[in-house]
Amino acid sequence: MKLFELSSGARDYRFSPFVWRILLALEHKGLAYERVPCRFTDKSAFAPSGAQTVPTIEDEGKWVSDSWAIACYLEDRYPDRPSLFGGESGRGMAHFIHLWSDRAILAALFPMLAADICALLEPEDAHYFRTTREKRLGRTLEEAASGRETAVLAFRQTLWPLETALAARPFLGGDKPYYADYALFGPFQWARCCSRFEVLEDGSAIAAWRERMLDLHDGLARRAQRP
Amino acid sequence: MKLFELSSGARDYRFSPFVWRILLALEHKGLAYERVPCRFTDKSAFAPSGAQTVPTIEDEGKWVSDSWAIACYLEDRYPDRPSLFGGESGRGMAHFIHLWSDRAILAALFPMLAADICALLEPEDAHYFRTTREKRLGRTLEEAASGRETAVLAFRQTLWPLETALAARPFLGGDKPYYADYALFGPFQWARCCSRFEVLEDGSAIAAWRERMLDLHDGLARRAQRP
Repeated sequence: MKLFELSSGARDYRFSPFVWRILLALEHKGLAYERVPCRFTDKSAFAPSGAQTVPTIEDEGKWVSDSWAIACYLEDRYPDRPSLFGGESGRGMAHFIHLWSDRAILAALFPMLAADICALLEPEDAHYFRTTREKRLGRTLEEAASGRETAVLAFRQTLWPLETALAARPFLGGDKPYYADYALFGPFQWARCCSRFEVLEDGSAIAAWRERMLDLHDGLARRAQRP
Repeated sequence: MKLFELSSGARDYRFSPFVWRILLALEHKGLAYERVPCRFTDKSAFAPSGAQTVPTIEDEGKWVSDSWAIACYLEDRYPDRPSLFGGESGRGMAHFIHLWSDRAILAALFPMLAADICALLEPEDAHYFRTTREKRLGRTLEEAASGRETAVLAFRQTLWPLETALAARPFLGGDKPYYADYALFGPFQWARCCSRFEVLEDGSAIAAWRERMLDLHDGLARRAQRP
């Protein structure tokens, strides 16, 4: 299996939140995979997929893109491996949590961290990233990041349901993590791999859970390069 | 088993969102129960529990309060009945969704509907409700409800993760509902039982799911009295 993921280029930061979900899902399933770095401005390696975004996987000649679609593919194609959803009744809950993570964590943090991402990129990628993201944000990356020390306090308040649920157990999945944990961890690992700005409150249940997530699979996520 | 729940009094509206979660959970488990109506200003029926809120249950001499605690009690006490969480791996996900429902659905809708609730109550309960809730809201119930036609449009946008997850399957639990569905349905059933103000968008996946939830157990929720 090949996993096509995003790299910053020469300095090789690997921060895609969507890819981190799938890296941990592949480890969860115990599947062997090869990581293939791509760039914002060079996605030719997975052109045959027809997709424009990472993660994209190629498995036995089959191409699948989008982190949720890949999670479902892995669960359905490898049903005898450890379940990502904890059985069929967990798939919908995991999907909801995946979508909430996209909106309430990743999209909420993006304005605070986009300028830090841009600083990691090669000139060509940085130009592409700045142009497309400033159009999306409706302001410069630096304007978006200004006041983030205040914005992050409001962000942390919105995490109350997650904070409360994680205060009651080691992982959202209980004694061990499932895909819902990976879906939530992706944006936090992205934040960690693209910036030194701390998005979580020290001493919070989410911060403690993040440490446990970083320890999984011989510290796969902890070993990732940070700025 | 006795289930202590809230009633509006003489006209007997039963709108507690927390109670609706447990009514459906009891049906899910196939357990027999007696519904005991109480009032905002008369909770003497479950005084031995020491609790001040509904739902409270008494089961084999044991008292349990709080909808999440009761769901966990039912799951653990009656493990041979159909699972509310779809196995142990689903409990944390269901807890997160329960908490998200409290915050993102119930708390978000409360200002829009509190005046409608007050109008259903007996004078003594209405006085208690108005006094305590206006203090909590920091404004009159009528002020809180003003502009709700606009506020509800923003509310519907915040439901995007739920809308998307429910567009992909009949229930969040998949082909059949689990506790996560009941946790989410509670506030929507509360809205329906205390007001004619429509909180969901016509034609949305959530609205279609609500219809399926209303049909469960011979239309238990659909038969509930509305204003």
